[in-house]
Amino acid sequence: MTTSETPAYQNLTVLSRELALLGDTEALLSWDQETGMPRDGVAWRAEQLAWLGGEMHRRFTRDEVGGWIADCEDAGFATDSDADANVREWRHAYDRATKLPSSLVEEFEKTRAMAKSVWADARKASDFSRFAPDLEKLIDLSRQRAECWGYEACAYDALIDDFERGARSAELATLFGELRPELVAIAEAAFAREPFDASLLAGHYPIEKQQAFNREVAEAIGFDFHAGRIDTAVHPFCTGLGPRDTRLTTRYDESDFRSSLYGVLHEAGHGLYDQGLRGDCHGQPVGKAVSLGVHESQSRLWENHVGRSAEFWENWLPRAAHYFHHLSDLTPEQLYRANNQAEQSYIRVEADEVTYDLHIMLRFEIETAVFSGDLAVADIPAEWNRRFEESFGLKVEKDADGCLQDIHWSLGIFGYFPTYSLGNLNASHLYAAARQQQPEIDSQLASGDYSGLLTWMRTRIHQPGSRFLPNDLIARAAGSPATSQAHLTHLRERYLAE
Amino acid sequence: MTTSETPAYQNLTVLSRELALLGDTEALLSWDQETGMPRDGVAWRAEQLAWLGGEMHRRFTRDEVGGWIADCEDAGFATDSDADANVREWRHAYDRATKLPSSLVEEFEKTRAMAKSVWADARKASDFSRFAPDLEKLIDLSRQRAECWGYEACAYDALIDDFERGARSAELATLFGELRPELVAIAEAAFAREPFDASLLAGHYPIEKQQAFNREVAEAIGFDFHAGRIDTAVHPFCTGLGPRDTRLTTRYDESDFRSSLYGVLHEAGHGLYDQGLRGDCHGQPVGKAVSLGVHESQSRLWENHVGRSAEFWENWLPRAAHYFHHLSDLTPEQLYRANNQAEQSYIRVEADEVTYDLHIMLRFEIETAVFSGDLAVADIPAEWNRRFEESFGLKVEKDADGCLQDIHWSLGIFGYFPTYSLGNLNASHLYAAARQQQPEIDSQLASGDYSGLLTWMRTRIHQPGSRFLPNDLIARAAGSPATSQAHLTHLRERYLAE
Repeated sequence: MTTSETPAYQNLTVLSRELALLGDTEALLSWDQETGMPRDGVAWRAEQLAWLGGEMHRRFTRDEVGGWIADCEDAGFATDSDADANVREWRHAYDRATKLPSSLVEEFEKTRAMAKSVWADARKASDFSRFAPDLEKLIDLSRQRAECWGYEACAYDALIDDFERGARSAELATLFGELRPELVAIAEAAFAREPFDASLLAGHYPIEKQQAFNREVAEAIGFDFHAGRIDTAVHPFCTGLGPRDTRLTTRYDESDFRSSLYGVLHEAGHGLYDQGLRGDCHGQPVGKAVSLGVHESQSRLWENHVGRSAEFWENWLPRAAHYFHHLSDLTPEQLYRANNQAEQSYIRVEADEVTYDLHIMLRFEIETAVFSGDLAVADIPAEWNRRFEESFGLKVEKDADGCLQDIHWSLGIFGYFPTYSLGNLNASHLYAAARQQQPEIDSQLASGDYSGLLTWMRTRIHQPGSRFLPNDLIARAAGSPATSQAHLTHLRERYLAE
Repeated sequence: MTTSETPAYQNLTVLSRELALLGDTEALLSWDQETGMPRDGVAWRAEQLAWLGGEMHRRFTRDEVGGWIADCEDAGFATDSDADANVREWRHAYDRATKLPSSLVEEFEKTRAMAKSVWADARKASDFSRFAPDLEKLIDLSRQRAECWGYEACAYDALIDDFERGARSAELATLFGELRPELVAIAEAAFAREPFDASLLAGHYPIEKQQAFNREVAEAIGFDFHAGRIDTAVHPFCTGLGPRDTRLTTRYDESDFRSSLYGVLHEAGHGLYDQGLRGDCHGQPVGKAVSLGVHESQSRLWENHVGRSAEFWENWLPRAAHYFHHLSDLTPEQLYRANNQAEQSYIRVEADEVTYDLHIMLRFEIETAVFSGDLAVADIPAEWNRRFEESFGLKVEKDADGCLQDIHWSLGIFGYFPTYSLGNLNASHLYAAARQQQPEIDSQLASGDYSGLLTWMRTRIHQPGSRFLPNDLIARAAGSPATSQAHLTHLRERYLAE
């Protein structure tokens, strides 16, 4: 009898499926809240979400479940089998879930629930001091969580692990330390170039036409609308509601079609990953996305590497002009330029590809300093502004444009930001590897055929699910571990080439 | 210590709230399935719904719950208190839920799940014989359910009770027996009148304009869009997703705006009832709608009594013509006529107010004959067609226009149809009572002010929830039990007055 045939293993797969049923239900409740729920539905919806979250936690943390995992571990596995990876991840998740006392879980959830609106008010008033007491409490509770989970080098590592299995802040610090001067050099050179005249794109872009164009593009890159759809939301996102149900959202600006288009390309990148997971083991670790840094590699790949390329606009400008007639006055080269512009800016989510990671590094440094005890919460604004001016040469005039701009901290989320940069580096590394391994991908992309690139990602990134840890997965797929080299090459080509 | 302060009662209210959380989650899963779920999501969605249904059943049928109910019954109540009604309804629901062996529940659910698509195929092919074996099985299982539940006069009564607490088929038969000749007489006289020339309404009605007009109307009658919304679905429906979240759907015909308008008015009637329930006891019987016959009274009231009245079109034709310019050539009187036309037709859901209840009586008679053993399943088509020709003077040429037209039987739903007629009678009875008790309602309606009528319904029908049984509720609200008199008067005014 192999491990996967033991009753313990069978029980765990049944439980995984049940938890996936509940988790996908929770995801629908959240999706609906963001896309259409009427205003007054919020209180009841919060109770539904809390109940489901609690129920999933109760079911997974029963002693019996720990016994099943131990039985599987005793039985041993074939290396790199589904069972091997599943049991490894079940153990990891079970230990983390059971190490937290329920009093701490409850206090954390309650504090989060309150902090979100306090942050929103503080941001509106651009007054960090209003948010500081809540932030202080969330950091303290997060530190307690980290202590429960345990760590080798520092508490912050235990937090990162929620988003990026196996990542360590020391390694990230090294990576970012090497990356920063290169990015600064590229940014300075890019700023010195003559900017694209945005008025050339000025015009009216009716929402229905944007929707039709975006749908054509999403279908072309491989998003399956029989197993997904696109809706409207204030903040674009992608969520999986089941093995054959992936929901994307975007937002529309009737004066610029690129906001919704790149929103769709980004979220469709996440969506392709979701649609590429193995439906036959939905709910099991091997049927789940492995990390945020890998997820973000897929969204950035389709948004930036594919969607902002010269080839993309060669292929798609005629279709865009079909919907938006005034674009027929422009050349593909102009569209390419327009979508690869570097600019100094305060706001991370509006940043271009060159400066984006500088925004991330700032947050990473602030977070590590706070969790190491080197930076007091009260001093965050001054430290943020000092570092920001150092990196960007801009003086932060108000907290809303500075340390209050992101929602993450108000949700008690610390250690998440670095995954955005890992996503950028992974995207470039994987894209370069795919083109090197299969040179026909370039000619396919030139003719608007995205199937070769998608198949490469499907096979090497999507199908394995969480079978390998993130770094291992990337290295196996690309043939070498991710570094920042491919990304820097990509940025130089896009932003500095004549 | 009063009953409502006992631990047993408190436990039951906590359980009710938990079951409402789950039930509203189930409702969202269904709403999403009808409004936007991608095609391939259906299998997983079915598993989610089955899991939630099973979980709710398991939680409610625990022995402990029966003990709590018995404790409450022992403690006694103040007559007509919340606690009185809650415990009465908990007892009723608990006994029904626990009397069914789980093997029967499972077999019924499985059979239903299969029968729906068999029916859809049979209807497409217009071949009853294909559906007959499944129908036979569903009827047999329903008979077994009725035997488990128990009844006084006949098994069919036990089934009706799922939809209309306290209704009995003998009383319905008497009611319908009296109503039929009157309806037939009105119908014959109405058919003899010159029909409205529908070509006067011909034109193009863009969906966005229909949506804007419908929203204005729904807001005017009191539907709260902060606690609800309107979406598109193949079959219009209304569903409550929480104490402040009511979803309506409608469908659009770009050649006739009335399809979506009356869909919205009908569903908004259900929605006003839902929004008028007591949010402070959401999930408890006193916070729940009492029956389908009362629910349908509210939808029919706003759709027909208000929405098809002469006053409605006096008030709303200018707004309709604002959106659909060609309507400015018509008079309010013409719109009134156009929306009160009697016609012979095969299909229930397309029937006018005069013939509608004749369609219902036919179904009621077929169902009672089947459950009494007087009619074999194989003989349903012939019997249907014979009775239909007798009532409508039309020969049924194919089963799809006859006994295969409705989805209900394929869902194992028997005893539901009569509630549509009860709704019609209740609507007329309540509307007449409201106008008689508060004569200012007439002048308010004439000026497009719907608040008086809504407040009357809110106070007497919505707020009590399931505090009283349906007949009792209607009699208390109107001052007398519902009969068919008010409805016949209404029909004569609408269809026969010069």
